[in-house]
Amino acid sequence: MIAPWEIDWRKRWQGHAPILLQPGSVTEVQTIVAAANRERVPLVPQGGNTSMVGGATPLPDGSAVILSLRRLNQVRSLDAEAGLAIAEAGVILADFHAAAAKAERRFPLTLGARGSATIGGLVSTNAGGTQVLRWGTMRGLVAGVEAVLADGSLFEGLSALKKDNRGYDINQLLVGAEGTLGIVTAATLRLAPAIAARAVAWVGVETPDAALRLLRRFEAAGDAVESFELLPAESLAAVLTHVSGTRAPLPSGHPWHVLVEAVTSDPDASNPTAFVERVLAAALSDGIATDATIAASEAQAEAFWRIRDSISDAERATGPAAQHDISVPIEAMPRFLIDAAKACDARFPGTRASGFGHLGDGNVHFHVRAPAGANRVTWLAEEAPSVTRFVDDLVVAAGGSISAEHGIGQMKLAELERLSSPSRMATLRAIKQAMDPEGILNPGKLLALAPQAMGE
Amino acid sequence: MIAPWEIDWRKRWQGHAPILLQPGSVTEVQTIVAAANRERVPLVPQGGNTSMVGGATPLPDGSAVILSLRRLNQVRSLDAEAGLAIAEAGVILADFHAAAAKAERRFPLTLGARGSATIGGLVSTNAGGTQVLRWGTMRGLVAGVEAVLADGSLFEGLSALKKDNRGYDINQLLVGAEGTLGIVTAATLRLAPAIAARAVAWVGVETPDAALRLLRRFEAAGDAVESFELLPAESLAAVLTHVSGTRAPLPSGHPWHVLVEAVTSDPDASNPTAFVERVLAAALSDGIATDATIAASEAQAEAFWRIRDSISDAERATGPAAQHDISVPIEAMPRFLIDAAKACDARFPGTRASGFGHLGDGNVHFHVRAPAGANRVTWLAEEAPSVTRFVDDLVVAAGGSISAEHGIGQMKLAELERLSSPSRMATLRAIKQAMDPEGILNPGKLLALAPQAMGE
Ligand SMILES: Cc1cc2nc3c(=O)[nH]c(=O)nc-3n(C[C@H](O)[C@H](O)[C@H](O)COP(=O)(O)OP(=O)(O)OC[C@H]3O[C@@H](n4cnc5c(N)ncnc54)[C@H](O)[C@@H]3O)c2cc1C
Ligand SMILES: Cc1cc2nc3c(=O)[nH]c(=O)nc-3n(C[C@H](O)[C@H](O)[C@H](O)COP(=O)(O)OP(=O)(O)OC[C@H]3O[C@@H](n4cnc5c(N)ncnc54)[C@H](O)[C@@H]3O)c2cc1C
Repeated sequence: MIAPWEIDWRKRWQGHAPILLQPGSVTEVQTIVAAANRERVPLVPQGGNTSMVGGATPLPDGSAVILSLRRLNQVRSLDAEAGLAIAEAGVILADFHAAAAKAERRFPLTLGARGSATIGGLVSTNAGGTQVLRWGTMRGLVAGVEAVLADGSLFEGLSALKKDNRGYDINQLLVGAEGTLGIVTAATLRLAPAIAARAVAWVGVETPDAALRLLRRFEAAGDAVESFELLPAESLAAVLTHVSGTRAPLPSGHPWHVLVEAVTSDPDASNPTAFVERVLAAALSDGIATDATIAASEAQAEAFWRIRDSISDAERATGPAAQHDISVPIEAMPRFLIDAAKACDARFPGTRASGFGHLGDGNVHFHVRAPAGANRVTWLAEEAPSVTRFVDDLVVAAGGSISAEHGIGQMKLAELERLSSPSRMATLRAIKQAMDPEGILNPGKLLALAPQAMGE
Repeated sequence: MIAPWEIDWRKRWQGHAPILLQPGSVTEVQTIVAAANRERVPLVPQGGNTSMVGGATPLPDGSAVILSLRRLNQVRSLDAEAGLAIAEAGVILADFHAAAAKAERRFPLTLGARGSATIGGLVSTNAGGTQVLRWGTMRGLVAGVEAVLADGSLFEGLSALKKDNRGYDINQLLVGAEGTLGIVTAATLRLAPAIAARAVAWVGVETPDAALRLLRRFEAAGDAVESFELLPAESLAAVLTHVSGTRAPLPSGHPWHVLVEAVTSDPDASNPTAFVERVLAAALSDGIATDATIAASEAQAEAFWRIRDSISDAERATGPAAQHDISVPIEAMPRFLIDAAKACDARFPGTRASGFGHLGDGNVHFHVRAPAGANRVTWLAEEAPSVTRFVDDLVVAAGGSISAEHGIGQMKLAELERLSSPSRMATLRAIKQAMDPEGILNPGKLLALAPQAMGE
């Protein structure tokens, strides 16, 4: 009866586990981990199981026990004045948003899986989302971590100190470790002031480079911009075709579009609409932007965001695609978007590549769609892997990362090994070995303990 | 002839080294480290040698070679638009400030030792300063690190990616590692926009708690405040007595004072003076502040800052003191300042304790001055250590850190051991052992490889 916990959210990774443990207290977690360490029983920590890389799913061999943290679901404290809250690992992101809102604050990180993703999973994947431009990833929002280490001892790092130079930063080491170095039981998280007003604009631009220049204009004028999302014409077209009730924000077509949101938390400050208008007016007259519109109501703002949020669904309706969550240095992104798409189209005839997403973070979802009429299952199994290696090579050549947001999990383990320097892999392995000598914490995720054979 | 490199800036730690190596390239650093690792020769990395904790000074036994990074002193690149620069380890902070200013940007971290401290030392100590409130410590300003690891291999982490989830964050592990995990050869650093205008105010308040409430008022009104420094009456008095050319900013005395600086980088935005005036006016009418003045000129602003920056010198003139660079959660700081001072005065009759500094960061310099007429050398050697242990115990009881800014080095190694949980110390040691198995990187700093005996 634990089937739902044995397969991931996207149903890509089917695993098997003999048992699911659901501790109800930190002490119970300690007892379980200490016993697992003694008996060398691997544990797979699991939160909302929304991992995009098979990180929370057990391996198919049934060797590991699932350790669900969902019952640790208390917000232990929330100090609105200090802007800090302590949430347990199992608290669901949407519930944490609600708790912050009740205190007239907000937790400035959100993502599509917010109804299921947990604080423990978000910490352990160093999750991102659409507000990273202004607030950073989880790494910047985590002020402290409480975790059970491999020997069952408790690492107590919740104390939220702005300055603390007592040796290596173990908190930050646990952020993004994907459950391979410790079991996160709680985190101290930074809260931001609630939003007093926002302005959401839709802008047509000729090139990704123009979009980046527009971003720099906004940045030079202040720090109100929280989101800056880039969409190619084909992503918009896919949404307009496949998602009912959507309509194009601008009257005529443009090769690229930008969705920008500026906010203020100061009710006395000038409305962000004036700020956005001012920057856009200059950009239009300088030819950086071709056309632009600012949402006239909250409903219209929501409609703009709905387009952005529907791209993945819409593209799925157009056929199978090899999807890549990648980043490159921001300045290199405009060129990468053009050149990498061209290179893919040339190398894999009939495919169609394009990227969309968080331009302001140097992070896009780079999708290579299968040729028209390709069989989904066959293409994904037989063609997609070489497309992915090709894209990953382009990313590395551009000084980028093959995993911007989602982590390594099972999915990218071989590619990480293939594309990292021996020095980097040796360091990752040495750290893993040091903190989990028996290899009980999520083995087979992020890295293999021994160097892997290369290739397929 | 290497005597100046064998003793620290404050002349507290006299060490000895057979030789000083000054490599001129990253490859030379690699060759040296690889050889040292092979032959098991300890290395002491050194930048400006301004460490406050004896971190860059060799041990007296002459077992280690000094490795000075000062010749690696190029700013490799500076991209004003992207707000990023790559500086080599030996670049001096003041020179880096100048390079950023030339590009109409700034590097928003500064400290008293800026004429000597180097990028490599600042990265390796996770240094702070007076702008942490707004910009964070080095940890937040470092976007990438290049370092030679213990085996002589090069860790290449300079690529400045806003999002990168390829395993454990080795960059962040090197920040604050005090040269015990790798030799930093260069770092990618974030630049901030240049300042267009600033407002500097001096405020009299009744209690540290009122000061904190004033800070929260500023924060609720916007994010222009970069510095928020707290001074007790006695610190001001010491400066007025011992530092020539200083005068009290306010006509009458107050038990506590706040120095606050707000800035804007937007030349079109309203002047920060109006913002500071608005918040101060409300605070005065609500009784949070007792009196306040805003500097009417840059010269007056500089005069206010000169008072703050002269406290250490002025206090030195009043007699010996046991000094503690400590932090506690910000909300706990007002109470800590009062209670810890009272407890010290009671426990060590004749001494006089008080704290001053970065209230907005929860970080103060907590000084316990010797009884009048005490002999400096004797008191520091015989009395100060037990004062320090007493203060450190109070800090730990308040959930704080015994090293906020300066690190552990030689000075706090025994106290770190005494006051950390076995689990934390075991983790620090396991990481050290994993990354430096031969123990050649700054041994005897930050931690001892084997657990130390407790006590004196
Ligand atoms: C529709 C959708 C949209 C998404 N959008 C984004 C996005 O915009 N940005 C983004 O970054 N991600 C996104 N994701 C990915 C996913 O939501 C995040 O990775 C999220 O952080 C996972 O949280 P979770 O609780 O579901 O973790 P799980 O999937 O349960 O686990 C994720 C990883 O963390 C480990 N783990 C979980 N809990 C703990 C714990 N307590 N201690 C130690 N290790 C633990 C697991 O072993 C696993 O390796 C999206 C996913 C979906 C399905
Ligand atoms: C007057 C004065 C004021 C100060 N004010 C502040 C302040 O406000 N805030 C603050 O945080 N600090 C302050 N400090 C402390 C000091 O300036 C900082 O710690 C600074 O970062 C040290 O830089 P450095 O180049 O002198 O490093 P060093 O003193 O040479 O070395 C510091 C540590 O880093 C290691 N190290 C140095 N270079 C490297 C490298 N390239 N790779 C690896 N390890 C390396 C050393 O081994 C040592 O452990 C102050 C010091 C003085 C003297």
